[in-house]
Amino acid sequence: MPDGLHRLLREGLGVRCDTPVPGSIDELELEPVRLADAVAAELASIVGAPHANADREARVRHALGKSTIELLQLRHEGLLPAPDLVLYPGSHDEVLAVLVVCSARRVAVVPFGGGTTVVGGVVPEASAFAGVVALDLRRLDALLELDEVSRLAVFEPGLRGPQAEALLARSGFTIGHFPQSFEYATLGGFAAARSSGQASAGYGRFDDLVLALRAATPAGTLTLGRAPRSAAGPDLRQLVLGSEGALGVITSLTVAIRPAPEQRIYDGWRLPSFRQGAAVLRALAQDGPTPTVVRLSDEAETAFGLARPGSAGTGAAGTGAGVSSAGTAGQPPGCLAILGWEGSGAELARRRDQAAGLLAAAGGEPVAGAGDEWAAGRYRAPYLRDALLDAGVLVETLETVAFWSALHGLYEAVSVAVRDALTAQGTPPVVLCHISHVYASGASLYFTVACAQLDEPIAQWRAAKAAVADAILAAGGSISHHHGVGTDHREPYERELGPLAIAALRAVKRTLDPAGILNPGILLPPPGAGSARHPTHETR
Amino acid sequence: MPDGLHRLLREGLGVRCDTPVPGSIDELELEPVRLADAVAAELASIVGAPHANADREARVRHALGKSTIELLQLRHEGLLPAPDLVLYPGSHDEVLAVLVVCSARRVAVVPFGGGTTVVGGVVPEASAFAGVVALDLRRLDALLELDEVSRLAVFEPGLRGPQAEALLARSGFTIGHFPQSFEYATLGGFAAARSSGQASAGYGRFDDLVLALRAATPAGTLTLGRAPRSAAGPDLRQLVLGSEGALGVITSLTVAIRPAPEQRIYDGWRLPSFRQGAAVLRALAQDGPTPTVVRLSDEAETAFGLARPGSAGTGAAGTGAGVSSAGTAGQPPGCLAILGWEGSGAELARRRDQAAGLLAAAGGEPVAGAGDEWAAGRYRAPYLRDALLDAGVLVETLETVAFWSALHGLYEAVSVAVRDALTAQGTPPVVLCHISHVYASGASLYFTVACAQLDEPIAQWRAAKAAVADAILAAGGSISHHHGVGTDHREPYERELGPLAIAALRAVKRTLDPAGILNPGILLPPPGAGSARHPTHETR
Repeated sequence: MPDGLHRLLREGLGVRCDTPVPGSIDELELEPVRLADAVAAELASIVGAPHANADREARVRHALGKSTIELLQLRHEGLLPAPDLVLYPGSHDEVLAVLVVCSARRVAVVPFGGGTTVVGGVVPEASAFAGVVALDLRRLDALLELDEVSRLAVFEPGLRGPQAEALLARSGFTIGHFPQSFEYATLGGFAAARSSGQASAGYGRFDDLVLALRAATPAGTLTLGRAPRSAAGPDLRQLVLGSEGALGVITSLTVAIRPAPEQRIYDGWRLPSFRQGAAVLRALAQDGPTPTVVRLSDEAETAFGLARPGSAGTGAAGTGAGVSSAGTAGQPPGCLAILGWEGSGAELARRRDQAAGLLAAAGGEPVAGAGDEWAAGRYRAPYLRDALLDAGVLVETLETVAFWSALHGLYEAVSVAVRDALTAQGTPPVVLCHISHVYASGASLYFTVACAQLDEPIAQWRAAKAAVADAILAAGGSISHHHGVGTDHREPYERELGPLAIAALRAVKRTLDPAGILNPGILLPPPGAGSARHPTHETR
Repeated sequence: MPDGLHRLLREGLGVRCDTPVPGSIDELELEPVRLADAVAAELASIVGAPHANADREARVRHALGKSTIELLQLRHEGLLPAPDLVLYPGSHDEVLAVLVVCSARRVAVVPFGGGTTVVGGVVPEASAFAGVVALDLRRLDALLELDEVSRLAVFEPGLRGPQAEALLARSGFTIGHFPQSFEYATLGGFAAARSSGQASAGYGRFDDLVLALRAATPAGTLTLGRAPRSAAGPDLRQLVLGSEGALGVITSLTVAIRPAPEQRIYDGWRLPSFRQGAAVLRALAQDGPTPTVVRLSDEAETAFGLARPGSAGTGAAGTGAGVSSAGTAGQPPGCLAILGWEGSGAELARRRDQAAGLLAAAGGEPVAGAGDEWAAGRYRAPYLRDALLDAGVLVETLETVAFWSALHGLYEAVSVAVRDALTAQGTPPVVLCHISHVYASGASLYFTVACAQLDEPIAQWRAAKAAVADAILAAGGSISHHHGVGTDHREPYERELGPLAIAALRAVKRTLDPAGILNPGILLPPPGAGSARHPTHETR
């Protein structure tokens, strides 16, 4: 990070810059191995010895996801929870066999894709178990079938985003699913966590794209989906999607594909205000033309982009145009929208022109270069977080979703809650927000929060996050639009669903996973535990 | 029916025309009332005496749905199963209270909307219960909220299609959901049975349109959905949608709405063959422009339309154009497609023109008048069935869905299965088919089957239907695209899902409905019963 940014952080946020840096793998102190050697050997024999690994590096690399709390855990003293053994199964049947043995031996199993969870989705609450096995699915990386007529592809779950796209590109197809975790996250993870990509307005969310799936569970195999849609009972595909490894291990996925677009164009637009910008986005989502990518920064995020070295704002300033010139001229910078258009030729031009007319009518002005800069840096933001944490900044993102009529209230409620909670701790934050995904009936809000780290930054953040969860639920939002539940959101998730829906989900869990070995504590409380804050009991 | 048609049926199908006509309500022999007077009084006191009815007419009107088997039951000797009592609750709380009392007294409860089920969805298998109550939801008929910003409306479930549309029309909105049962079916029924309307290509299926819902269950209230989409765990809305009253009684629904279109245009096109027509429909569904209504008759259905008095085909013949002139000139009549376009002005014209180019390139020719005739008669076909049954014809529809690459195989398999099964009984059938709904990845097939009635037409049809179910599953189709499971499809549904998914669903049922009172035998086997043909046991 440039010195200028350090100074900004010190002066703007009161950052002290005496934060510990992460230890090397050898320096980390891991929880001791609990898995009995005999059980480890039994499990290794299923996948073959070369595909079982209990060494320090393998354990560390499967210990955590990518939430700020987890990155902080690597920087502070203390025992790091880590799986006892990492298994790399090579087939559905091997996964089934591992689940059977682990059920019999009461060993917790953590299905592991890209490890990009930001809600504690790979850190089970496994004290009641005889050990923890990470089930790394990277060897399940085949494109099993490409059906160009039905425009679907059958994949194994361990393929990372770029791998899957490369396999399809050979035939001219794309999934069109590009979340910020795209470079590392796997298709299985996209499905298990109901991922939503940056191009969701054009291609749909990943749960829209899954037409069929197979999952291995301790009780056997689930095979769901024979057609685009059906009236044969409830859509049970939707019970596995979003189950975050707590109900089963997805071992194959039938995914909708499309011809890769000839053109991808990303436009930047400055809108006068967040409220006016949101109204235009709503019109595009409801009446079209709907862009493939839709994103709108609020005033603070737009202004911050201008001040951030190497950011889209500064880049645009270099061209002397749009947001930046307005900002540097002392005018309010307004709100930066990024609209992506994919397709070909005249049709794409027509849709883009039509949208441009609506944007201009709402007071929008094009911002030269901003769209391309966004596209070039679209996967980069998460990497900046490590540098900021090293520099003593507590920085994290959080997100929610609501119907349009509740959206501005939700925006205010979350902004106030996180600002108050951190200010009360003596660390007033910067709070930035953008609309990240739009639907006809609503949109998601994606917040970035930064403040000075206290000596116990994990507790500092948890307090803020708890206040945010209360605010989201009170304002009618959902606790997550695309990050999922994991362990971090489990308690507000229980409140969002209510005790009866949670009981129904637990009943499914007991059927598919009678010993409760799959990701204990993720999504649902671990065996034997009640909810910490709001006890789960069935009420009328 | 005109004499010409009678002659056609006699000569073409061997119909004998000595079928019993349905008895009047007074002539029908009903199963005796089993519900104890004290329990009936207890239940009546919940909804108020004026809203509880045990008279013969109320019992008969809630005894059956609208499948051909049920219409035949009204025409043949035998005890008619009928509920002991009909309750008309006026609120969610009254529904909850009824479910509590019925659970305590072991009384089966049949949630009743429009009664338009064609899969036995209102005829429970209730011999293990102390009686049957029909819960008619017609008094729950309010539009509770209209949110024009989010384009959603909150409805009570007892509204019939036309009632809901009329309430929205005051504000210029529509749901856009027009299944053939539209005139009688209710919103709650649309949701509980995953209904798919004729305009599904444009508006989506009803399960796409439900954004939130509340359901009363014997174990309490479920409230699901706070946003268009969420990553907060599995989408449990999809567990209630399609549950056919077996998991809970839907008492409110938040439904996506749209501005009513300025124009609705229905075009008829003649395509050279079913295969070529299906290819064009696939292109429209995959690459657009996608019509709002999409339908393609096969050669037999198209030809039959020409011969049927008062039908679209004859109407078109009257104009001397298109399908009919080709047919009457001795050329193959080809396949009639109906494409509906909704929208306004230039945008609608552009999409329609673009499609016309694709259709013409595929050898299509416009058929003057056919689209409007289809639209005028779009809800009429089911009524003809009664007249045909009276005339000694066994006539019924059945439907399925698959991915595009499996569609023609499924078409052949079902056609052969139903033809062989009826021919083996000495009654070779006429088998007509159309594609009724399209998706990017597949389409549904809707068959109409007609043959001469035997003396035991119910057994005659059941044998054919069993053969069809086997054929559908073997060809990779789903047992129902939009009719649902009910009792008629329960056994093949179990095979389609497999024992583990069925076990998961039963676990949900046990949680929400511990006494198993809700629609016993619908969707899932009734308490104590195994599957007749394929015992449910959990296997690996």
